Amino acid sequence: MKIVRHVAELRLGSSEVGLVPTMGALHAGHRALFGAARSENDVVVASLFVNPAQFDEPTDLAAYPRDEEHDAAIAEAEGVDVLFAPAADELYPRDFGTWIDVADVGAEGAARTGHFRGVATVCVKLFNIVRPRRAYFGQKDAQQAAVLRRVVRDLNLPLEMRVLPTVRDEDGLALSSRNVRLTPEERERALGLPRALHAAVGSDDPVAAARARLNGLHPEYVEIVDLDGAKVLAAAVRVGSTRLIDNVLLEGDLS
Amino acid sequence: MKIVRHVAELRLGSSEVGLVPTMGALHAGHRALFGAARSENDVVVASLFVNPAQFDEPTDLAAYPRDEEHDAAIAEAEGVDVLFAPAADELYPRDFGTWIDVADVGAEGAARTGHFRGVATVCVKLFNIVRPRRAYFGQKDAQQAAVLRRVVRDLNLPLEMRVLPTVRDEDGLALSSRNVRLTPEERERALGLPRALHAAVGSDDPVAAARARLNGLHPEYVEIVDLDGAKVLAAAVRVGSTRLIDNVLLEGDLS
Repeated sequence: MKIVRHVAELRLGSSEVGLVPTMGALHAGHRALFGAARSENDVVVASLFVNPAQFDEPTDLAAYPRDEEHDAAIAEAEGVDVLFAPAADELYPRDFGTWIDVADVGAEGAARTGHFRGVATVCVKLFNIVRPRRAYFGQKDAQQAAVLRRVVRDLNLPLEMRVLPTVRDEDGLALSSRNVRLTPEERERALGLPRALHAAVGSDDPVAAARARLNGLHPEYVEIVDLDGAKVLAAAVRVGSTRLIDNVLLEGDLS
Repeated sequence: MKIVRHVAELRLGSSEVGLVPTMGALHAGHRALFGAARSENDVVVASLFVNPAQFDEPTDLAAYPRDEEHDAAIAEAEGVDVLFAPAADELYPRDFGTWIDVADVGAEGAARTGHFRGVATVCVKLFNIVRPRRAYFGQKDAQQAAVLRRVVRDLNLPLEMRVLPTVRDEDGLALSSRNVRLTPEERERALGLPRALHAAVGSDDPVAAARARLNGLHPEYVEIVDLDGAKVLAAAVRVGSTRLIDNVLLEGDLS
């Protein structure tokens, strides 16, 4: 596996490339994305970049877990060909001033000002740098995938968005790089989130059903979000100082 | 020359492509761009699209001259290989909602709210559809070229921006698709614009010098605009109901 830090080194020619954009702190959810990219493309590129532009809280950015050596070993083991790990100023030089604005997005978009603008901007940059045929995202960030699908369509980017199912621990908690911040007691409380969402599937009023089962967790939002025809029940909660999101599919197909 | 109306027909593979984006009403300024693209690329694509998103005034959009047959003949004669002439809803379907926002831009940007957002968005779409190696613009729209150069750099688009000198009529008026709207009397008055700008080159205070020589024309702005290191003296005037812009180079190089 080659590790690349500069944009100019990353022009890969005309191979069929699969791109897995990540912020590192890789877990089994990322490994599932690498595996899918490996099986569907000639060349697999993973990016490893904690994108400052998508963090609405400086403390969250500062606390985001970083361990490049560990991440590189996981990527290598999963068959990634090129790991693109740029410094922040490689992607955002000092006079950077072009942003991708996406139309109103509820739930995460409303809760985190500027978040999807940051996500869309960095992903369009990565798409232009790597020129993948396919890009891989997890259903855990279902709205992110839907926003990017819209950006890809609106800006005529010639790539296919692939969305893979959320990978969960045995206890049902969706894998997230932020889970490492939870104390054992917080982790136990956090299980209220996936349990409430799953219990609400099939209910006449899934939002009310999920809210009623959150077991003392205070949600930032519980919403039904329409994603390109599919519907998910999505929620965000704060457990201690850690913000967690999760969602379950109510209707349709996200892949 | 092939005329294409749908995005899906326009994936050109890996040739060296030169793109000349136009809004039609082609004149000798466009012909100079076609000629440069023809000499520097294997394949020349011209787009013909009056981009509603970049008009801040509905009356200006409605009055913009359109004559596809005439434009196709000019493009054909200049060696254009593919003319991309989409309908508005091919590029902006009803639920379109992704925009390229560029950092503060004075002069034209300040005078025409949303103009450069519309320009940047449609050009990024055209760049993604056509995937040119080089894109061609005229110095008459110097700020447009500078904005797009910034967008290309910030979004890591792998193409070269080529900016060619303004083509003028013998009397000095910069060629513009809007010139056809001028009455003979208005056209005579309009010559005050290039004369004032040229007379101001070399002055200690070019803005004041140009303003003093505008011969009764009321400018929307007269400004020195910094464009990627080069400096131009730029102005916009309204002659009757027609808005005209022009600029002259004060320092540096725009190509």
